[in-house]
Amino acid sequence: MQRYFPILDWGRTYRRATLGNDLLAALIVTIMLIPQSLAYALLAGLPAQVGLYASIAPLLLYTVFGTARALAVGPVAVASLMTAAAVAPLAAEGSAAYLGAAVALAFLSGLLLLAMGLLRLGFMANFISHPVISGFITASGLLIAAGQIPQLAGLSVRGETLPDLVIAITEKLPQASLITLLIGLPVLAFLFWTRSRLKGTLMRLGQSAKLAGVMTRAAPVVAVAATTLASWGFGLSGRVPVVGEIPGGLPVPVLPPFDLALWKQILVPAALISLVGYVETISVAQTLAAKRRQRIDPDQELVALGVANIGSAVSGGFPVTGGFARSVVNFDAGAETPAAGAFTAIGMALATLFLTPLLFHLPKATLAATIIVAVLSLVDFGALRRTLAYSRSDFAAMLATILVTLVAGVEAGISAGVALSIGLHLWRSSRPHVAVVGQVPGTEHFRNVARHNVVTAPGILSIRIDESLYFPNARFLEDRLLEALAEQPGLRHVVLICAAVNVIDSSALETLEDMNARLKDGGVSLHLSEVKGPVMDKLARSPFLHELTGQVFLTQYDAMIALAPEVTQTCHDAARCETARAAR
Amino acid sequence: MQRYFPILDWGRTYRRATLGNDLLAALIVTIMLIPQSLAYALLAGLPAQVGLYASIAPLLLYTVFGTARALAVGPVAVASLMTAAAVAPLAAEGSAAYLGAAVALAFLSGLLLLAMGLLRLGFMANFISHPVISGFITASGLLIAAGQIPQLAGLSVRGETLPDLVIAITEKLPQASLITLLIGLPVLAFLFWTRSRLKGTLMRLGQSAKLAGVMTRAAPVVAVAATTLASWGFGLSGRVPVVGEIPGGLPVPVLPPFDLALWKQILVPAALISLVGYVETISVAQTLAAKRRQRIDPDQELVALGVANIGSAVSGGFPVTGGFARSVVNFDAGAETPAAGAFTAIGMALATLFLTPLLFHLPKATLAATIIVAVLSLVDFGALRRTLAYSRSDFAAMLATILVTLVAGVEAGISAGVALSIGLHLWRSSRPHVAVVGQVPGTEHFRNVARHNVVTAPGILSIRIDESLYFPNARFLEDRLLEALAEQPGLRHVVLICAAVNVIDSSALETLEDMNARLKDGGVSLHLSEVKGPVMDKLARSPFLHELTGQVFLTQYDAMIALAPEVTQTCHDAARCETARAAR
Repeated sequence: MQRYFPILDWGRTYRRATLGNDLLAALIVTIMLIPQSLAYALLAGLPAQVGLYASIAPLLLYTVFGTARALAVGPVAVASLMTAAAVAPLAAEGSAAYLGAAVALAFLSGLLLLAMGLLRLGFMANFISHPVISGFITASGLLIAAGQIPQLAGLSVRGETLPDLVIAITEKLPQASLITLLIGLPVLAFLFWTRSRLKGTLMRLGQSAKLAGVMTRAAPVVAVAATTLASWGFGLSGRVPVVGEIPGGLPVPVLPPFDLALWKQILVPAALISLVGYVETISVAQTLAAKRRQRIDPDQELVALGVANIGSAVSGGFPVTGGFARSVVNFDAGAETPAAGAFTAIGMALATLFLTPLLFHLPKATLAATIIVAVLSLVDFGALRRTLAYSRSDFAAMLATILVTLVAGVEAGISAGVALSIGLHLWRSSRPHVAVVGQVPGTEHFRNVARHNVVTAPGILSIRIDESLYFPNARFLEDRLLEALAEQPGLRHVVLICAAVNVIDSSALETLEDMNARLKDGGVSLHLSEVKGPVMDKLARSPFLHELTGQVFLTQYDAMIALAPEVTQTCHDAARCETARAAR
Repeated sequence: MQRYFPILDWGRTYRRATLGNDLLAALIVTIMLIPQSLAYALLAGLPAQVGLYASIAPLLLYTVFGTARALAVGPVAVASLMTAAAVAPLAAEGSAAYLGAAVALAFLSGLLLLAMGLLRLGFMANFISHPVISGFITASGLLIAAGQIPQLAGLSVRGETLPDLVIAITEKLPQASLITLLIGLPVLAFLFWTRSRLKGTLMRLGQSAKLAGVMTRAAPVVAVAATTLASWGFGLSGRVPVVGEIPGGLPVPVLPPFDLALWKQILVPAALISLVGYVETISVAQTLAAKRRQRIDPDQELVALGVANIGSAVSGGFPVTGGFARSVVNFDAGAETPAAGAFTAIGMALATLFLTPLLFHLPKATLAATIIVAVLSLVDFGALRRTLAYSRSDFAAMLATILVTLVAGVEAGISAGVALSIGLHLWRSSRPHVAVVGQVPGTEHFRNVARHNVVTAPGILSIRIDESLYFPNARFLEDRLLEALAEQPGLRHVVLICAAVNVIDSSALETLEDMNARLKDGGVSLHLSEVKGPVMDKLARSPFLHELTGQVFLTQYDAMIALAPEVTQTCHDAARCETARAAR
């Protein structure tokens, strides 16, 4: 029971001090979330109030089902972009069908997440590698920023790829509104300045770090209030795009459209949004939990996110996930339990009830500026350089993810990244590193003859294969062994060192059986050494060990003692070994 | 030049003795190929002569480009079934569009194979594991046999899946022709008997093994001749389906239809036929080459198969590949060079020129019987049992391939098999085997504490992870280390034994950096031991080694000597070790 309702766990020990901390954190997150929820709804092509709706029920539900103490769920930039990409081909923006599809997307994502959680499939998120996630987030941030920049000039531009956006912007450029630009650009500059400088300035002026942080986070609210006042005071609403009429009142429960054809069309996007959202959620949740030595349950997080998305759909919202920046703010502000999320939901409900009339005159350019500043913090080109320095294949996966996302859209980008990283892994393991080894003088240790000063015995080939033996490399092993045989005519024994062999699958077993028979024909015995327990257990269930012409040794040292005792024992005494080598 | 034209290599040393052997093998293969080529063309839904055409140009071209000495290319059962499955949805059987699509399929397959060969992508075939191939061949054999059985009763049944076939057969059953059955069943019984018994009987009667083999292979020709004579003699051609008019003369070179929409539709089937055909070809070619200690060039085989398929298309044929049974016959009959293939092509050309009028009265039921007997030898249910005994995940991949092929068709089957075997591999490597190890008394060797009688030192956790560290298992390692830490409060050192770690990718590197920092916070040092050269080279390019709180040791023994010298040295002397343990 407690596993599926973690609230029963932390709720039991809930105290007044915790309440105070949670309330303060909720206040700060609410202030941050009001402009964000409106902005991300517009980014997804939806009416502004949908963002508010998606910030109430999901937060309440996550409080009941979530295991991460400081995670803040709600609308986020990347999921909003993916929602727009998924729904735009299906219906005209602004139509009831568009909203219906977005709601159905949240519902289906929720069902998928819930099912994955109940089936304990949390491990699937691991198949998206860090370089692919990093590249995807960077490219998404660029796409979002590129789509919002023209909004600073009052232009509404849609496009799922960078080329689309560039063409759309070029076409609309003549319609740019100077007066909108006079609002948008200063807001953008103000937000960049507050983000990079305000906290330091306030602290130099003697404010505490905490208060300075809160004031910095409140900067978007200041921008919203100031530009709304300006727009109202100067009567700009006819000349500058504004948010306009937002229906007041709390969301009314609705059911998503049950249209099988629609669900089929959104199945793949829903799966991708779920997976990407889950990866983002679990990353931030684990990072924050680790800071306080807490643990989260990855499978229960799937359940919690699933229920939150279903809740979002039923209350007329769109896909939600755990936001990175917002969760960090929640954590820094002192949130101790998921109750902070419930308090934020109450704050958002109050905003929905009482603030919406005040937002009529809010310029859309202000919201665009808040989005641009938020997403550009996600863009991390330095990761490309760091990854290239470490691994070319990881770099290739990251670069491909970025380029495909920019040129062909978010769904193609994440799919290509995952496929490429898996493909590169398979390709790499299909051509494993193979080392011929010899004994390190004075030890029982064996190392690569090409890298270390080691001793080998004549007529014996000790070969270490640095990969599990399985279908992608089964034939490779055969080729390498035959090559080695061709080079050493006087060979009598081949010892295959299996210290790095974690699995031998059926394909590789067939290859080993073939090799054993072929070596036998050539008068060469095949031995194995350092075979691991689980691998040995499996081999014992096949006829291979009976057919093996040689032996299976516990260690490579045992093998060499059995096959070439003089060389090996001499070499074990380093001094004698050196003398013996000098004498040869 | 010799790389792309292997004929320049073996042709240079071609002698008269070789010529004799190649001619005899060609004669035997031609006798076998005449009924097969007609039968497989009908199986693919094509006119009989298309099978003859596909047995001329491809064989000549393979002689020029192939590296396998005894491989016999031409129409084969599985590729014919896949052709029918690919083309049937696009055009009505018997129409010019159907033939055009089959020709285009051969052309596109040829281009794909050629491109893969020139790009040296032969390794891609390794991604189809042996269990998947075996399951696919078994299921294809069953599908083909199921489709041919009703033809014994004069019923023409088409269906891409087992359920389709069962429904179609049930519907047509009332139209069964008794007289056709009176031809089909005896032929079937005769062919089964010759395949299983004739060779032994002949050898008991004093014939040489070689001659008995040849006579056995000629049994289908005997059946063809006898039933054709019977059908002609009794004037059955109105009541029994016969092959009928076959246009005489050699094929006229044509170009395949260049219709972009068509090519798009057949792209995936062409890729699958290419891959499956290549895998079958390379398997038989390597098996036969190994028997004579010859080597083949897998990438050049792609080129050769590609050119052969383009040749087939241009001469009005359909996809060809290296046939398993036919190549074994060619090899057994003494074929020494690819020239045997050219001689077979000449034999088939002569048959096309002079034999076609004689085949008018050949009952189709006879051809169906030859197909059934041929494909049932491909069905190997024993492989399921053998694979289950060895590996459950390989068994799962094999069973899934069989079931999906039978229920959803050949393309779905092979795709599902490949996806599942890759998925299972990733899943398995996402949950690697992890062992806590201790020293084997009297040695420098370290083994799993759960399996061996070993010695450990207090405050030191030596943990061996039996898998490369990469994205699918990066988080798993973190979980296991944190678990181990929670269980051992007095811990001071963690040694990660990397003997089985063949790669550390960027995702795992991030995890290691996190772990290093977290262990540091807890006052625990992280050490590595037995890191392989290539892994160490990469780590040296990252900041990780500078941040590492512990050391990197060449061997686990070195690590333990440095961290717990008394325990380790005592243990190295087995007798003293036992005393020390008894004293504790």
